[in-house]
Amino acid sequence: MTINIDQANQKAIDAFMDARPVVVGVAKAKDVIPGMHDKLFLHAGPPVTWARMAGPVRGAMIGAMILEGLAKTAEEAEKRLASGEIEFAPCHQYDSTGPMAGVMSPSMMVYIVENITTGYKAFSGLNEGRGKVLRMGAYSEEVLNRMQWLNTVLGPAVDTALKEMGGIDLRTLLAKALHMGDDGHNRLDAASLLYTNLLAPYIAKNAKDPSVSFEVIKFLGENALSILNPVMAGCKTMTMAGHNIEGSTIVTTMARNGTDWGIRVSGLGDQWFTAPSPIVKALYFAGFTEKDANPDIGDSVITETAGIGGFAMATAPALVTFIGGTPRDAINTTLDMYQITFGEHKHFTIPFLDFRGTPTGVDLRKVVETNMTPRVNTGVAHKDPGVGQVGAGVVSAPMKVFEDALVAFAEKYGI
Amino acid sequence: MTINIDQANQKAIDAFMDARPVVVGVAKAKDVIPGMHDKLFLHAGPPVTWARMAGPVRGAMIGAMILEGLAKTAEEAEKRLASGEIEFAPCHQYDSTGPMAGVMSPSMMVYIVENITTGYKAFSGLNEGRGKVLRMGAYSEEVLNRMQWLNTVLGPAVDTALKEMGGIDLRTLLAKALHMGDDGHNRLDAASLLYTNLLAPYIAKNAKDPSVSFEVIKFLGENALSILNPVMAGCKTMTMAGHNIEGSTIVTTMARNGTDWGIRVSGLGDQWFTAPSPIVKALYFAGFTEKDANPDIGDSVITETAGIGGFAMATAPALVTFIGGTPRDAINTTLDMYQITFGEHKHFTIPFLDFRGTPTGVDLRKVVETNMTPRVNTGVAHKDPGVGQVGAGVVSAPMKVFEDALVAFAEKYGI
Repeated sequence: MTINIDQANQKAIDAFMDARPVVVGVAKAKDVIPGMHDKLFLHAGPPVTWARMAGPVRGAMIGAMILEGLAKTAEEAEKRLASGEIEFAPCHQYDSTGPMAGVMSPSMMVYIVENITTGYKAFSGLNEGRGKVLRMGAYSEEVLNRMQWLNTVLGPAVDTALKEMGGIDLRTLLAKALHMGDDGHNRLDAASLLYTNLLAPYIAKNAKDPSVSFEVIKFLGENALSILNPVMAGCKTMTMAGHNIEGSTIVTTMARNGTDWGIRVSGLGDQWFTAPSPIVKALYFAGFTEKDANPDIGDSVITETAGIGGFAMATAPALVTFIGGTPRDAINTTLDMYQITFGEHKHFTIPFLDFRGTPTGVDLRKVVETNMTPRVNTGVAHKDPGVGQVGAGVVSAPMKVFEDALVAFAEKYGI
Repeated sequence: MTINIDQANQKAIDAFMDARPVVVGVAKAKDVIPGMHDKLFLHAGPPVTWARMAGPVRGAMIGAMILEGLAKTAEEAEKRLASGEIEFAPCHQYDSTGPMAGVMSPSMMVYIVENITTGYKAFSGLNEGRGKVLRMGAYSEEVLNRMQWLNTVLGPAVDTALKEMGGIDLRTLLAKALHMGDDGHNRLDAASLLYTNLLAPYIAKNAKDPSVSFEVIKFLGENALSILNPVMAGCKTMTMAGHNIEGSTIVTTMARNGTDWGIRVSGLGDQWFTAPSPIVKALYFAGFTEKDANPDIGDSVITETAGIGGFAMATAPALVTFIGGTPRDAINTTLDMYQITFGEHKHFTIPFLDFRGTPTGVDLRKVVETNMTPRVNTGVAHKDPGVGQVGAGVVSAPMKVFEDALVAFAEKYGI
């Protein structure tokens, strides 16, 4: 079989860049995610069993059980989760992406993000803010009450606003935010402000009660990660547009479940390549150290997969105050990533590098050739269930997943 | 007399930096600006007579006459303005600052910005957005209707919101915005978003009608210069805090009326030093060229006087798409300005220059020694009354005003 890898890769990244994700609404997971059912709980990263499941994912699963009314206490929840009555599956296998633990259960409200170029839809939950939150493995009453409020108050208010305004074009919004010091992953200050500003008038106009619009607009505006989840679903629609291209070595999924780090490759279908998840090099919040850290976790590395996040750090120098390092390191990270990517983004550009496009489309071949893996900006969860976020930093993907995938590629295509 | 200029200058810029301007409310100019009266119309820059008044200022004065009910037509307004019945004075002489033409008439609503460190208050009008607007010299029905809406709907809604939330701290907000790609003058995208985000919940909560909160929040959110006027008044409170320091060569006012460029100096009281206003090196909007341009105009150079705007361009590389040049030029502008300023800002920092403080406090001596004048980012108005904005760009202050001031300084202090 003759394959033209470069041609296939170009086709893949063109599809990434031509994708135009629009946030169109908010709805219950089980009403909109194809294949979702009452006993299916999704999680970040590649597949994992209860026995091998990381602390923060266990914590979020416990919270989800209580939220779904399937357990009254953490003990009861754990017992039922361990019993096998709940099916676990990666978000990525259900057109979804979840930050950190990434747990999505059937009755949670999720954003619907449509790539209007192809019609493909992806999904992600509602962002809870920073600190003690379900996605970091916390499940206290305060955490679950906030989740309830998101599901019953904020979610419906945002859905009504999105429907009236005809959705929000995420590609345009992200392109602007990258010119405002965001990396598009760990720093979404500008993007979240842009998002809240677009929504606020429509929330104010349609809320049943001014006190509801007050609370919803304030919550969205004060949460610098309000837009993280729709951005992740948007990036998923970009990379899925370039998935399953025969002969392509472009990575279309990168994801971690806190135990394993996994990738999938355009020309290799839905097969996962996994390796143990590394510890993040991080700035820790007061009172925590690396000993508290769970290994790298979450689907948010879909942003780097699509060409932003750590790959666009050169445009987000202020981020170093949150994740460590110097502005020079931020620039070098982006320059390094050009060495392992196939192209430069048409729509996402970096003013300080003379408006050069962000490094886009991780190429298996280049990762192995240069012996350099993708660098990711990320949050760090406590390793135990029930605690929450302990820091933020930078991590490099394990080389093994790229090597294994390249071997599989060579075998499949007989190179 | 023995004077220690460096000591005086340090005192002046310490006062700039210790100022903490807070936007506290919106009210009618004649109700809050000390000395304002029914026949006093303020304008940008140093003093100017009707005979020498630039086209855009004349246009804005005509609009103000109609808004005040003092004329029904442009012809009638011009006749009365030329008759001497209206007193003209610089905004800066009435604790105020006005962008571009900077016309403020008695019944216009103005922002009240208080330096909570000293209690000093400064004032500035409500921003109309870009394009065909009163501050650019336009006075069509559309322009005047928008002014009416600002005065009767947006102004009161923002006032109520500001009062309930206890005001907005501009120094903190600007420090953030400089980390989000704003220069604080021509690019205020991030600052205006931050501003709208803070106001929106309180506007939504207090508006009489959801359709009013919809319109007000949408207008503020879509106007990337919403915060320009409060920022200017805030910068005025900073520089006034360092004004009238015996023996200081720090420039505390820079301002243009479209005919003359003027400065005032901390150690030289309220005396203006003026020279003809230069033409701006600009990117012109479609259909316009330099032939249409009025010479440099407006009080917005108060931002550069306080240490942001053109002086902070290194943090705003995306601005070059609007005003011309390359990101390297933006960095060089900031590096140049360090040569003519006395210090570096404690609160306003530039991530890309390893969080170095912005160049703060133009020092007369250094301007003359280096033969380099302050560089300013600015909008460009059409030279004829009634047209509006035609472009945006960069301009250097005329050397003569600094030379004249230095001579006056030497004379006053017998050096």
